Amino acid sequence: MTGDAEGARLDAAQVTALIEGVLTHAGSVPAQAADVARALTGASLRGVDSHGLRLLPHYTRALAGGRINPDPRAVIRQTAPATATCDADNGFGHWAGYLAVTRACALARQTGVAAISVTNSSHFGAAGAYVLQAAEAGLVAFAFSNSDSFVLPHDGTQPFHGTNPIAFAAPVAGARPYLLDMATSILPWNRIRDYETKGLTVPPDVAVDAQGQVATDPRAVAALLPFGGSAYGYKGAGLAGMIEVMSAVTTGMAHCSRLLHMAGSDMSTPRRLGQCYIVLNPDVFVPRADFTRGMADYLADLRAAPARDGRRVMAPGDREWAVEAERSRRGIPVNPGLMAELRGLAEAAGLEPL
Amino acid sequence: MTGDAEGARLDAAQVTALIEGVLTHAGSVPAQAADVARALTGASLRGVDSHGLRLLPHYTRALAGGRINPDPRAVIRQTAPATATCDADNGFGHWAGYLAVTRACALARQTGVAAISVTNSSHFGAAGAYVLQAAEAGLVAFAFSNSDSFVLPHDGTQPFHGTNPIAFAAPVAGARPYLLDMATSILPWNRIRDYETKGLTVPPDVAVDAQGQVATDPRAVAALLPFGGSAYGYKGAGLAGMIEVMSAVTTGMAHCSRLLHMAGSDMSTPRRLGQCYIVLNPDVFVPRADFTRGMADYLADLRAAPARDGRRVMAPGDREWAVEAERSRRGIPVNPGLMAELRGLAEAAGLEPL
Repeated sequence: MTGDAEGARLDAAQVTALIEGVLTHAGSVPAQAADVARALTGASLRGVDSHGLRLLPHYTRALAGGRINPDPRAVIRQTAPATATCDADNGFGHWAGYLAVTRACALARQTGVAAISVTNSSHFGAAGAYVLQAAEAGLVAFAFSNSDSFVLPHDGTQPFHGTNPIAFAAPVAGARPYLLDMATSILPWNRIRDYETKGLTVPPDVAVDAQGQVATDPRAVAALLPFGGSAYGYKGAGLAGMIEVMSAVTTGMAHCSRLLHMAGSDMSTPRRLGQCYIVLNPDVFVPRADFTRGMADYLADLRAAPARDGRRVMAPGDREWAVEAERSRRGIPVNPGLMAELRGLAEAAGLEPL
Repeated sequence: MTGDAEGARLDAAQVTALIEGVLTHAGSVPAQAADVARALTGASLRGVDSHGLRLLPHYTRALAGGRINPDPRAVIRQTAPATATCDADNGFGHWAGYLAVTRACALARQTGVAAISVTNSSHFGAAGAYVLQAAEAGLVAFAFSNSDSFVLPHDGTQPFHGTNPIAFAAPVAGARPYLLDMATSILPWNRIRDYETKGLTVPPDVAVDAQGQVATDPRAVAALLPFGGSAYGYKGAGLAGMIEVMSAVTTGMAHCSRLLHMAGSDMSTPRRLGQCYIVLNPDVFVPRADFTRGMADYLADLRAAPARDGRRVMAPGDREWAVEAERSRRGIPVNPGLMAELRGLAEAAGLEPL
């Protein structure tokens, strides 16, 4: 652990070891714990703190309570030449996600495009983790997953959809992949809690109170508006619905409003979430050299686009890869509250003190 | 033609015959003209007027000028068990879109999922038309296409991405499909022209002037903001980029900022646009009865969600299918300016006067 003006930092190897140690102590088989560690450490490195190390205390409770199966047996079944299903046996969603995308990549190499659904999964962290694996292997990939209700439907007053993320990645020669990983709410739920902690007001047209009225006091916020806000939220809600169809209806799992709450008190009942991946091999459409040059030209033109004063135009992932470079060097910042929790978990697991 | 307080209306059969007659007179082979008529009439019926009948004068000019090949020979090549490419030989994008999605549907029935890229295409109208064909055949489909520069990148000051649409459709038993068809700009370009015609101001944070400053005077508007506006446009721009990768880079076609302008004066050079479709057969993931019930349950819960005063929560497509029912009965409204143009085209083509 190193300290600086912004607070304590843990290096990536420490974070990985901590997650693996805590989860295996809580009963998980090592392979699963390693996949959770890989997904969470990766998210923390990229600056996606909402889906990084901060989730470890929650996952430890979910494992201890029985919501998550400590020793799951995945059943992957190929259902057609280019498709498969993966029953995750209520194990960690991260482990199921990597398993599924690995299979989808192997299939896509044979069939050009492949799709895999995941059933009986749990929370999988940041959707970007899984498409990233595909892009690092030279493939193009989409990930879809739903969540419990946090977000109003357009013109609605009560939460219905989850923050339903879509992630997309494509390989870039000689650089980290093109990586889009976005919730279909305007902001993530965790950002509201962050405003509260810091005593800030929530920007207008982002969130609503329990009556469905736009709220700027973070303490009054009961739900999020869909991406697009009050006026154009039909697009954000439509994207959330597309993701619901892909990750719930097509997988045979329950949709958003029928899911157990992630942060609910029931830590013993599996949540039975769905995931869905589509992986494409660009080589079946264009020679690799053309794809590589096309990505490079597109990104060069985008980044060279004239920008507002003091800004520059960035591609999805540019900010994340810059943060990853910095955090790989300087460590992952951990706020004092989380650090105290992590110290407790490390001690309970008999690990070296942080 | 029937007239009412809101102006003249043409029934769908008249519109179809008009489009086919005008385009075949302008040199198109009948099969192509029929596909354009099907796509445009469908869009007009669903209320997507920006991508309906109003495009006929433009397409006629593009055909006359040589931008669009009047008698194209498509080359469809299967490139892997689940993928194909379709060279559209610079024909109409609508004809190429239906051809491509038809092949993708046939492939998906064998392989579970299929993807097809379209090269050397032209403008294809509303992306929803093609995914709709798949959903009507019981399949789930995505469509991606880019366009010439209309939309700022996030933090940019000059147009870069096109309005880059994504469309998604899924079958609903006993009803019209679930249909999402959205541009990744906040509003379509045509809406700005509509504000101008009506002497209205553009809503804030939707469009910018030539200097990249937010503009509300429609006459000053030079470009659109990405979906999400000044603050959250990184998501809309990210989606536009995802669509760019799928429809340009993966197909080997040029990206947004390197495309000839649709409305430019060069009507003789083919624009060489790309399209991409992914089609999935839900039967390879869940029994059809489960999929059907899942769609019905999701849509019933969504539509029953509590709504703001005087509104109701709708699913993507609900508004379009209601308009389709009304316009199938009462005809497609045509504004006086367009009607005058259409009368001229009909007369030039030797068709019955409108």
